[in-house]
Amino acid sequence: MADRYQKFTSGAVGGFAARRLGLPRPELLRRFRPGDRALVGPVLTAGGGRLGKELAAVLEAAGAETGPAASPGALVFDATGLTESAELARMYGFFHDRIRTLAPCGRVLILGTPPDRTGSAREAVAQKAIEGFVRSVGKELRRGATANLLQVAPDAPGAIESAVRFLLSARSAYVSGQVLALGTVPAHSAEPAASAAAASSLASTDPTWSWEKPLAGRKAVVTGAARGIGAVIARTLARDGAFVLCVDVPGQAAALTDVAAAVRGEAMELDITSATAVPALGARLRREDLGGVDLFVHNAGVTRDKTLGRMDRTQWDTVLDVNLRAVETLTAALLDPADPLLRPGGRIVCTSSINGIAGAAGQTNYAASKAGLIGLVQALAPRVADQLGGTVNAVAPGFIETRMTAAVPLFVREAGRRMNSLRQGGQPIDVAEAVAFLAAPGSGRINGQTLRVCGQSLLGA
Amino acid sequence: MADRYQKFTSGAVGGFAARRLGLPRPELLRRFRPGDRALVGPVLTAGGGRLGKELAAVLEAAGAETGPAASPGALVFDATGLTESAELARMYGFFHDRIRTLAPCGRVLILGTPPDRTGSAREAVAQKAIEGFVRSVGKELRRGATANLLQVAPDAPGAIESAVRFLLSARSAYVSGQVLALGTVPAHSAEPAASAAAASSLASTDPTWSWEKPLAGRKAVVTGAARGIGAVIARTLARDGAFVLCVDVPGQAAALTDVAAAVRGEAMELDITSATAVPALGARLRREDLGGVDLFVHNAGVTRDKTLGRMDRTQWDTVLDVNLRAVETLTAALLDPADPLLRPGGRIVCTSSINGIAGAAGQTNYAASKAGLIGLVQALAPRVADQLGGTVNAVAPGFIETRMTAAVPLFVREAGRRMNSLRQGGQPIDVAEAVAFLAAPGSGRINGQTLRVCGQSLLGA
Repeated sequence: MADRYQKFTSGAVGGFAARRLGLPRPELLRRFRPGDRALVGPVLTAGGGRLGKELAAVLEAAGAETGPAASPGALVFDATGLTESAELARMYGFFHDRIRTLAPCGRVLILGTPPDRTGSAREAVAQKAIEGFVRSVGKELRRGATANLLQVAPDAPGAIESAVRFLLSARSAYVSGQVLALGTVPAHSAEPAASAAAASSLASTDPTWSWEKPLAGRKAVVTGAARGIGAVIARTLARDGAFVLCVDVPGQAAALTDVAAAVRGEAMELDITSATAVPALGARLRREDLGGVDLFVHNAGVTRDKTLGRMDRTQWDTVLDVNLRAVETLTAALLDPADPLLRPGGRIVCTSSINGIAGAAGQTNYAASKAGLIGLVQALAPRVADQLGGTVNAVAPGFIETRMTAAVPLFVREAGRRMNSLRQGGQPIDVAEAVAFLAAPGSGRINGQTLRVCGQSLLGA
Repeated sequence: MADRYQKFTSGAVGGFAARRLGLPRPELLRRFRPGDRALVGPVLTAGGGRLGKELAAVLEAAGAETGPAASPGALVFDATGLTESAELARMYGFFHDRIRTLAPCGRVLILGTPPDRTGSAREAVAQKAIEGFVRSVGKELRRGATANLLQVAPDAPGAIESAVRFLLSARSAYVSGQVLALGTVPAHSAEPAASAAAASSLASTDPTWSWEKPLAGRKAVVTGAARGIGAVIARTLARDGAFVLCVDVPGQAAALTDVAAAVRGEAMELDITSATAVPALGARLRREDLGGVDLFVHNAGVTRDKTLGRMDRTQWDTVLDVNLRAVETLTAALLDPADPLLRPGGRIVCTSSINGIAGAAGQTNYAASKAGLIGLVQALAPRVADQLGGTVNAVAPGFIETRMTAAVPLFVREAGRRMNSLRQGGQPIDVAEAVAFLAAPGSGRINGQTLRVCGQSLLGA
């Protein structure tokens, strides 16, 4: 999983050399494997905000060690009680005293309130200040530790469990410096019970459901599933219990069949830009063995890099058609008011990109398409909630080690790998875990969000 | 103004060497001087959106050359007519054909609609896609050219002139890759006529008013005015016609007096964190020669850099007190419902920082304070508009060449300077021009915004 430089500096000789030369030594990140403990531990909590009880219940349900520890695995501060900037000193004090004891691959998690959902301007200021704080902490942490901020709207009780479990586990290894909002889009009353969980553990509301197989019984579609990130998304959703219909273009048949076989799913060759894509997909999804889809992952994407003056019309159209217009067309069918393909409580996840946020030279087409996807999830979130009690979100990968990035010239690749707080590229599994998290029943109040999976890349807007 | 490397590569020998070695050659940016033409030119326009007539009137009023040109100074596309992603190809086509003819220090400007103010999800997607496009264009442009997106809410007619003039002039030399929204906060009916301009030129609504002295008759306060960016802000506001009360801490008396004398303003020694700051400032501003303040620039700021585990409580408190809490306290007095110090139509501008957006190692305190300022302008914008017909905005400088940044270690300084699309640090005047733009009468519909002045720094969130 590690790149060659990382392997070198992880060894005795390379580690010694890197230390002496002051070179970065990227930590081998701990990643989740089935059977692992749910959370990193021990977890130290403080803060005294409105989410304290809920947080304690979540940690207990997850079997987390809590209480004093010489080297905590996670430091969690409930900052929802901070209503003016003077009170930020409490948050400073908690982390100041303990941050140097945080274990390798540890977690800093702050719970806050979305600034526009606070009760006063002073509270909004204090809550916004936390964003600058947590992003700085993420840049200071070493040895694979991460820092994130979960902003919980006041009218979203009992909804934090899924996000807390993700952010305090090895599943979020490559997510750092991020602000994730929860409960900012009104929920639909018809939302399935599992998503509208009470303050106790999700599992307790449905005895047949488990955190080990959170997607059991769900039907998923993943586009671009034959290779790279898409193939790993398919495998991860299957690991979590979903049936996966693996979609990719004709011509990828061999690789696609392999992936489908590995996940005990089904392969479907389909050009998503063709006029027949919607009827073909609709026909398959409406067959009674599926009866619609619970989770649609718009992962297919292409690049045709050229600077704008040298980019021909075909290069523009190809990227926009595959990455954006096909997603719009398929999503319209998923949400067809008369007969939606997406089932009640369903989820849509789009693969955007950090370059859709920051822009990139040579990628006016790609960045436009990926920014468009961010616009799509923001624009459609209220409708998906209202119509189906579902959600639509995006993940935005940063530098991920794939065959695509392996083809990038060495110097550019090496810069991309190191220009983030974890000093390494991410793995496809890191993106897949984020998708699985957004797809999980407990994530029903996370809607319209774009979650960066980038190791806190320096790049941004 | 140029740094040493830039001077070297601008010369014959250095330029030759840099070209042969493939090193960056930062352009000497053209900056505005009184007497210069209002806009870069010639200006090529296209698009056919709802802002076409307004744009044409603005360009005519500003005396811009328009029509075909071998080497246009500005390419402006009105993208407000693009209501679905397929139509983005029109924008691509316009720039594809002309981008390589753009003059050095030229301007790309796209007019769009804020995605959340569009009429349909498809339009929101297309408008959001433009953000990725313009940020990529900014990263591709060479020779000091910039690219920005002005998102104009549909219910803000006749409000673009000030922003178009700024973004198409040499005043915005170091502003690139930015998305600026206009008309997103409801305007107050009592707003002064000059801010609620009709679709014709601002100047025509008030014959005594001119674009040469846009702040004539206005009373301004600048904190932290003795040195650095603050001193240049004071000079720039005075250049534009304002009376400037220059505020700085006791101990900066000599420098402060010099600045005040240079701007024919007034010096006031004041510790803005002291309990007597509000009464002292209030007493001065209420004297009848001033009778309140039209423009308050919260520019004072300090750093006390340490990683969180080594940052003592005093270092935390000092930075939060000066950079954030004093601003909150002074702003409360400016907006005191019973007797506001800010006059009707008044403006507040805060100096935030790119590190408040992106976070920075060693700056948990500073980044929290600067992020808090972004929260402050977002939270208070509707209130300032409603109460006084005024605005509150922030500027967020990137790497600016000052005595503060000159003290940064060479390697870090050099990285900061080059890690942006213009391959150089900005000058204090670049920040001051942005402040003057937000303060200008015509900018009354720009509210709650944070304008980055960073040369499209790679750093972001």
